[in-house]
Amino acid sequence: MADRPLILVTNDDGIFAPGIRALVEEMVPFGRVLVVAPDKPQSAMGHAITIHHFLRLAPVGLMPDVESWSCSGTPVDCVKLAIYKLLQGSKPDLLVSGINHGANISINVLYSGTMSAAVEGAMEGIPSIGFSLMDHSIEADFGHVRSVVRSLVGDALKHGMKEGYCLNVNVPRAEFGPLKGIRVCRQAKANWEDEFETRRDPTGKEYFWLKGEFRSEDDGEDTDVWAVHNGYVSVVPTQYDMTARQGIADLKDWDHALE
Amino acid sequence: MADRPLILVTNDDGIFAPGIRALVEEMVPFGRVLVVAPDKPQSAMGHAITIHHFLRLAPVGLMPDVESWSCSGTPVDCVKLAIYKLLQGSKPDLLVSGINHGANISINVLYSGTMSAAVEGAMEGIPSIGFSLMDHSIEADFGHVRSVVRSLVGDALKHGMKEGYCLNVNVPRAEFGPLKGIRVCRQAKANWEDEFETRRDPTGKEYFWLKGEFRSEDDGEDTDVWAVHNGYVSVVPTQYDMTARQGIADLKDWDHALE
Repeated sequence: MADRPLILVTNDDGIFAPGIRALVEEMVPFGRVLVVAPDKPQSAMGHAITIHHFLRLAPVGLMPDVESWSCSGTPVDCVKLAIYKLLQGSKPDLLVSGINHGANISINVLYSGTMSAAVEGAMEGIPSIGFSLMDHSIEADFGHVRSVVRSLVGDALKHGMKEGYCLNVNVPRAEFGPLKGIRVCRQAKANWEDEFETRRDPTGKEYFWLKGEFRSEDDGEDTDVWAVHNGYVSVVPTQYDMTARQGIADLKDWDHALE
Repeated sequence: MADRPLILVTNDDGIFAPGIRALVEEMVPFGRVLVVAPDKPQSAMGHAITIHHFLRLAPVGLMPDVESWSCSGTPVDCVKLAIYKLLQGSKPDLLVSGINHGANISINVLYSGTMSAAVEGAMEGIPSIGFSLMDHSIEADFGHVRSVVRSLVGDALKHGMKEGYCLNVNVPRAEFGPLKGIRVCRQAKANWEDEFETRRDPTGKEYFWLKGEFRSEDDGEDTDVWAVHNGYVSVVPTQYDMTARQGIADLKDWDHALE
């Protein structure tokens, strides 16, 4: 039993989301499972951590024989509490995050709490994979995602993963038809055309709701956006070293003397 | 007047922090200044955005003739509200974020709200620079940081900046002695050795405070950690494309067939 890999599971939709339940069910055959996930939705929390407030953990009966905790903080807080509190500094053999209700393709990796948890895992040297389904619905069908999870987790445990990056996995929605396969991709260049809807409270004071439209102008067939829109699962190796190497050369021309 | 560059200023320590005041004062000679910053400390909020709640803006008299707004959201929310609400979709000529009370070297770029605001600016195609001083104190001395700000903002407005990345600028604390110069660096490989301090509330229930120790084991003299510990200002070009290019080749060996 002690030789079975220890798998840490988290997400950003909260511990009671259907997506994490599907992921936990798929992990149980692979090893010992520890679940630490937010006690409420924490979508779009990015790599936020809680430093101005304390954190709480509460035991949750998610499913029989699976140690599960809800956490008052962000997805990255969940990873830190799992490692440095519950595991007393020892590292799990694998971290999986998700299955996210909604896509995390392209720049959405930066906003996503689900992916930030996987990035945090990579920063800790843990093989880490974030899974997302391109369907925001609470009733999303995760059936076809399960075989993707089994395939990639099997690969990760069999081959191991190099340090320095995690995997960002996105799966087209079930209605799109049978999956054509898995493609290793780069993050597409895209942006959000944002908008704020202005409303007035009963006292007449304005408030704003963020609305946005995701736009990709990247024609590359090697991108995650292309893959998921063409029936493939996208896998983007995603690193925490944000250095723009090309930028180092660009800036050599600058005048760096100080007054 | 209309030809003067429009400069958007934000931070994560909040609109009433001394660091943003110093930054705004230095921006006024360069152009028209618009300030949109959080109404409370938002350190370590990373790239979080607010999607489960509405946002508010309130006019603030930060200093004469400078349009200033406090925002109820995160630093990235501030950037989005500035562009898509206050500027009605037009982009400023420059975005500066900070001056942060505390360093944002190495992987701290991922946790930092100040740097995430600059990354968001880059995602919008705006030349963007985040400034941080390695001193958390509310009474930190920003005097020596001002010449760094003038030098780099002058460079950015004169030379322009290529798209795809922003700049992460860190300045040693004043007590360290005169600055030796500015070095363009890569993000050091480092990590946080975290710890949670456990306390009990009056009912006996446990709660946890995050504490951590920053550890760099990267010996490279081309890193931001090396620069700031050797009396230099570090400038790391920081990109939002998180694709690990080397990982794409690594994963070609994986079995990508689905069951």
